[in-house]
Amino acid sequence: MQFQLTSDFIKNVEQLVAKKDGNKLRELLHELHFADIAELLEELSSDEATYLIKILESELTSEALMELDDDVREKILSRLSPKEIAQELTEMDTDDAADIIAELDEDIQEEVINKLDDEERVADIIELLKYDEDTAGGLMAKELVQVKETWTVAGCVREMRRQAENVTRVHSIYVTDKEGKLKGRLSLKDLLTASEKSKISEVYIPKVDYVTVHTEGEEVARIMQKYDLEAIPVVDEDGLLVGRITIDDIVDFIKEEADKDYQMAAGISSDVEADDSVWELTRARLPWLILGLFGGLGSVYIMKGFDEAIANYPILFFFTPLIAAMAGNVGVQSSAIIVQGLANDNVKGSLVNRLVKEVGLALINGTALSALVMLFGFIVGQDLLVSIAIAVSMLSVIIVAALIGTFVPIILDRRGIDPAIATGPFITTSNDIFGIFLFFYLSKIILGF
Amino acid sequence: MQFQLTSDFIKNVEQLVAKKDGNKLRELLHELHFADIAELLEELSSDEATYLIKILESELTSEALMELDDDVREKILSRLSPKEIAQELTEMDTDDAADIIAELDEDIQEEVINKLDDEERVADIIELLKYDEDTAGGLMAKELVQVKETWTVAGCVREMRRQAENVTRVHSIYVTDKEGKLKGRLSLKDLLTASEKSKISEVYIPKVDYVTVHTEGEEVARIMQKYDLEAIPVVDEDGLLVGRITIDDIVDFIKEEADKDYQMAAGISSDVEADDSVWELTRARLPWLILGLFGGLGSVYIMKGFDEAIANYPILFFFTPLIAAMAGNVGVQSSAIIVQGLANDNVKGSLVNRLVKEVGLALINGTALSALVMLFGFIVGQDLLVSIAIAVSMLSVIIVAALIGTFVPIILDRRGIDPAIATGPFITTSNDIFGIFLFFYLSKIILGF
Repeated sequence: MQFQLTSDFIKNVEQLVAKKDGNKLRELLHELHFADIAELLEELSSDEATYLIKILESELTSEALMELDDDVREKILSRLSPKEIAQELTEMDTDDAADIIAELDEDIQEEVINKLDDEERVADIIELLKYDEDTAGGLMAKELVQVKETWTVAGCVREMRRQAENVTRVHSIYVTDKEGKLKGRLSLKDLLTASEKSKISEVYIPKVDYVTVHTEGEEVARIMQKYDLEAIPVVDEDGLLVGRITIDDIVDFIKEEADKDYQMAAGISSDVEADDSVWELTRARLPWLILGLFGGLGSVYIMKGFDEAIANYPILFFFTPLIAAMAGNVGVQSSAIIVQGLANDNVKGSLVNRLVKEVGLALINGTALSALVMLFGFIVGQDLLVSIAIAVSMLSVIIVAALIGTFVPIILDRRGIDPAIATGPFITTSNDIFGIFLFFYLSKIILGF
Repeated sequence: MQFQLTSDFIKNVEQLVAKKDGNKLRELLHELHFADIAELLEELSSDEATYLIKILESELTSEALMELDDDVREKILSRLSPKEIAQELTEMDTDDAADIIAELDEDIQEEVINKLDDEERVADIIELLKYDEDTAGGLMAKELVQVKETWTVAGCVREMRRQAENVTRVHSIYVTDKEGKLKGRLSLKDLLTASEKSKISEVYIPKVDYVTVHTEGEEVARIMQKYDLEAIPVVDEDGLLVGRITIDDIVDFIKEEADKDYQMAAGISSDVEADDSVWELTRARLPWLILGLFGGLGSVYIMKGFDEAIANYPILFFFTPLIAAMAGNVGVQSSAIIVQGLANDNVKGSLVNRLVKEVGLALINGTALSALVMLFGFIVGQDLLVSIAIAVSMLSVIIVAALIGTFVPIILDRRGIDPAIATGPFITTSNDIFGIFLFFYLSKIILGF
């Protein structure tokens, strides 16, 4: 059933593009799903892709454009005239159209908007452009099916048929009062089974979840997931129904957020993929490595400060990678749990309780690991005091690392900074430095060098 | 609009439970959304929660049960009689009912199934129990609206009303032939706008995406996301329509998968949350720390093998945390990109191309970092040959770490093992050992100690 994009197929398309054989291309591609067209476009050069966008029907290409990676789309749009862009926009839902316009250079934005003819849509799009990308206002579309509570079911079905023309998928029918204030919703099922003469006000469900235009995207995702919603209406400050957000936009949002957090934890600072250019990948990766390098150089300095131990206790220096690994791993574990907890809104209770719990957890893990280190020392015949110094200072390092890993994200979150930046290289690097210092400092006290 | 679970509210509920005041509790809670009931249940003791489940209507509690954490649900179910469990199941969709039954002990499973009365449903549930949890068969529900291509639109609307009674949300109407083979779909919109007398075979859309019962959950999620589907039909080996999967189940699946990958990368081996018990958190975290500990002890041994360098080049030992950090960070970056690429299905091209690209990337990053190390050495007046030894061996370590980070997940994936286990502690630990060995080995050659 599924279309498979083969290299033969791509080659065939490339040859037809080279021959400028529009008819054959249209014939070859018009049965494809827009998501497959998008995959194809990503495999072509920008010029080839632009040619396809120009010759294929906008109905197909407008949706494919939305599926493309931002950078691929940017290249294609820069090769299209304002009129051609406007043509694509005409086939899009208002939210997608607004997103595209927001991506254009400012001087072209106006030209494109001027080329759009449907005035109502233009007003809708301009309204959507006002909102921040990551808020409900930025995520919503203006397309929805809206009925007034004073109508009858029969009138509602008529009106719905008319409105449904513009709405790709009907999730819910929203009921408003005369002024347009959201009152409730109506399921298609209810509409099908209600008597034709009843008033909407008698059959609608007054309980309806909604968000306001300023609700954060993450909060919208949380609500829709928690309540298993497939669409949610959006109201403005006055409670007027202004749009709706559908689950497919939220699925993409959830996926993007998860990918971003994952990459952040792995020390990759911008949204890149395995197939991006070496240059893009370097830009995303090198800054974190440089951070790690500075951390490592900091450790060099710390150890230089303890170099009197080299003569009698060289073994301590052999243990530094172990200490760094423990500090890093414990810190990443603690921060990952907190970052996820913050995202899912289940970090509850007071800071003191959390502190007690983290220290308890670190004590259990640390004691188990210290016991293993003591055992190792015993087996290889290491000096007992050295083993004790290593075990005790490792235990302390683990406790401190857990506290840093727990509280740095919480503090960042309370200051309104994305706590996800505190995972990965950030936490491992700072824990490396703290950990190594603490290790040598405590060892010095215990061993007295 | 949103219900907020306050500690006062919880206290109130607890007091009413203590008094066994069922009426007041029903009154207090019957307006709540099932997702809020679930949140409340998670805050109560198992006995209190079980009491609520028993006295509230199954219509409300059955859905709340599905929202609970597995361990909370397990505790509550163990306190319910087979008959009480069966009562909850009666209100659930077949997919949820099958999931619950699968969670029960085997001896109770049968008792519960015997207490269910609707024979058709029992057959459906038993069928669903056959499938692996993470396949389309395990994810699908039997509830769907199905019409035959030979019917008229009017007959279809009648039949739909009847079937819709059992289906919470109607996404699509599936069209089958007489034998029940999936032929296509029909949107509610089409049905509303088509003439009553036309045959379904004249109005249905023959192009329909579907999956088979054995399709992996990840693949289902990929297809539904790619094609923006809100529901997808599931067919068996013979093409017979057997169920459908809705997007809300897939959203949970995507979220769970993302959380799992994230935790795996952070060295947390089972699904835990910040509020889980210290014991559960220890079980999830300690194994990875022990792995890291063994890695660290391995490094101790490697360095012992190079201890002749201590006299003349103690500085090398100060650099080991830096080398370990670089090896770890580069490895995690490479593996994270590959793991994500594999999940999103965009790791294309041959292994040789990927090898060339990764080496190129590592060369660029490594050269930049080595230059910084040389600069550092120059500034602090370090012996030039020592700086060169450190820079060159660090560059080699970075290249090797990138290769390990790239190819270990690819190899695991090709062998059918989840590549996500190769991120985090696994890759940092192995890269630490390889990196430190390579560092000292190359330094020894360059410096000749």
